[in-house]
Amino acid sequence: MGKTEFESVKRYLENNKGESESESETRAFLEHLILRGLRLNLIEPGHVVFSMNIPPRLLNSGNYLHGGAITTLVDLIGAAAIPAAGFPWDSGVSLEINLSCLDAAYAHEEIEIDARVLRVGKTIAAVSVEFRKKKTGQIFAQGRHTKYLPSTIASKL
Amino acid sequence: MGKTEFESVKRYLENNKGESESESETRAFLEHLILRGLRLNLIEPGHVVFSMNIPPRLLNSGNYLHGGAITTLVDLIGAAAIPAAGFPWDSGVSLEINLSCLDAAYAHEEIEIDARVLRVGKTIAAVSVEFRKKKTGQIFAQGRHTKYLPSTIASKL
Amino acid sequence: MGKTEFESVKRYLENNKGESESESETRAFLEHLILRGLRLNLIEPGHVVFSMNIPPRLLNSGNYLHGGAITTLVDLIGAAAIPAAGFPWDSGVSLEINLSCLDAAYAHEEIEIDARVLRVGKTIAAVSVEFRKKKTGQIFAQGRHTKYLPSTIASKL
Amino acid sequence: MGKTEFESVKRYLENNKGESESESETRAFLEHLILRGLRLNLIEPGHVVFSMNIPPRLLNSGNYLHGGAITTLVDLIGAAAIPAAGFPWDSGVSLEINLSCLDAAYAHEEIEIDARVLRVGKTIAAVSVEFRKKKTGQIFAQGRHTKYLPSTIASKL
Repeated sequence: MGKTEFESVKRYLENNKGESESESETRAFLEHLILRGLRLNLIEPGHVVFSMNIPPRLLNSGNYLHGGAITTLVDLIGAAAIPAAGFPWDSGVSLEINLSCLDAAYAHEEIEIDARVLRVGKTIAAVSVEFRKKKTGQIFAQGRHTKYLPSTIASKL
Repeated sequence: MGKTEFESVKRYLENNKGESESESETRAFLEHLILRGLRLNLIEPGHVVFSMNIPPRLLNSGNYLHGGAITTLVDLIGAAAIPAAGFPWDSGVSLEINLSCLDAAYAHEEIEIDARVLRVGKTIAAVSVEFRKKKTGQIFAQGRHTKYLPSTIASKL
Repeated sequence: MGKTEFESVKRYLENNKGESESESETRAFLEHLILRGLRLNLIEPGHVVFSMNIPPRLLNSGNYLHGGAITTLVDLIGAAAIPAAGFPWDSGVSLEINLSCLDAAYAHEEIEIDARVLRVGKTIAAVSVEFRKKKTGQIFAQGRHTKYLPSTIASKL
Repeated sequence: MGKTEFESVKRYLENNKGESESESETRAFLEHLILRGLRLNLIEPGHVVFSMNIPPRLLNSGNYLHGGAITTLVDLIGAAAIPAAGFPWDSGVSLEINLSCLDAAYAHEEIEIDARVLRVGKTIAAVSVEFRKKKTGQIFAQGRHTKYLPSTIASKL
């Protein structure tokens, strides 16, 4: 992976600038909400690792990291692993997302999100995404993300 | 289902008050972001239907409804179908969430989200959640949500 | 659906002839093992329903219908729903199979397997498959099957 | 893991004796059909690896390893990884099985099936199962298996 590619992935996913007051009505605000605070630790062929300190905004009503936040991370970080395997950035559309929640993770816990490309074929890519607690190494969630690759197929499924 | 239960589900999921500027740092902001704008259309035993006009804030970088937003809705609306089957509100934790994305849905499209309880047993509940375009009836996503029911088991999985 | 199509689906899936002694080494024996005993009840656009009396050969070591048998039925009966939606028979390859097991089903219980096409696009089809006990109507399993449609893509994923 | 445990897992999963003519009507014949030919390569805490030479009986009508056979292996070998993590053998029932098919695997290819326990809690266990071609190391399928652990809960879900 060239330095440019690394920088573009890093810039996109670590985009955590302050936002204006009316921010939550902005286009694609959800992505920014989820991505803010992510740090890219490692990028190598077919493999990316991010870390995050769980922010209160992503908790559910039970006060631990929201399953919806975790699946959104599976989607976004899964997508980031595909260019790390040498494929064009942000191409394709999601076909399938799945997640097993194995334990609760609480506000301010340090977590690692580890995405590994299982396979990139001519039209289908699949990525496995694992969520671990940094302190203990315990896996608290695992998901998989399958994408259809051509960049212009949203309406052609 | 009693009138009170209906009102409590409705109040919780239609909670779409304005928020202050620093809103996005509020605890559990993600839930509010996703739920704002949802309308409850139908609630009957084991079945709830909501509708929504897709807001720009939930789009992805491809400009259609984010897979992460859809899975968050599977989680939240799936959970709402369980009390509709006569079980205590918001009990339990997510075990599994899955989603098949079948087509893109764009900003300002009217959609219906239809959650049907497949089964509630002593400890496990499963809900199927279908996303349709109101205009055509086309299903553009289907997900499933499995929960573990006792309300105090987050740490006992 | 024409009568010929109905007959070809019926013939394929109800193919329950006796087999010779060395049967279990035959090519594609698994399919025959699973399909033997299936009865086609209904076929209409995008929808097929089969029934079956659970045979002892498909039990697991806990003495109820094997999760692997159920997923094989999701695969095979899911595939049968696609021609029922007017598409060529047995085209495509499996991308994803998932299953939620909601209760145990025992030997000699009568079950119904209901497959409904969620969407068939240019390249992707998804089918929801529900397993019910005939006596009570209880859903004991639900699965989903996603296929990639072109018939010649096994090596092109 | 004690030697006895290793031997009991090995004996159960490598149980590939010849069968009588009427074999396919035997109770639990499916398990035997799938397991016959499996070889246990490695067993260590929370991790088992099996290998197999793909037999013609497990092919689908497209002449490659059947998705239903792969999910049955996810179920059976996933279950085998739980005692390898020090838990009682064959306890629990399946809650969820999922599989992504990434490429076709043909008759007589040597494959490895690698099952890793993600987490075993008080009541829920999850195992990730990866299928690789021995020659190239290519992952051609990945699945996940979630079980509910108490051994007597089939009717209590």
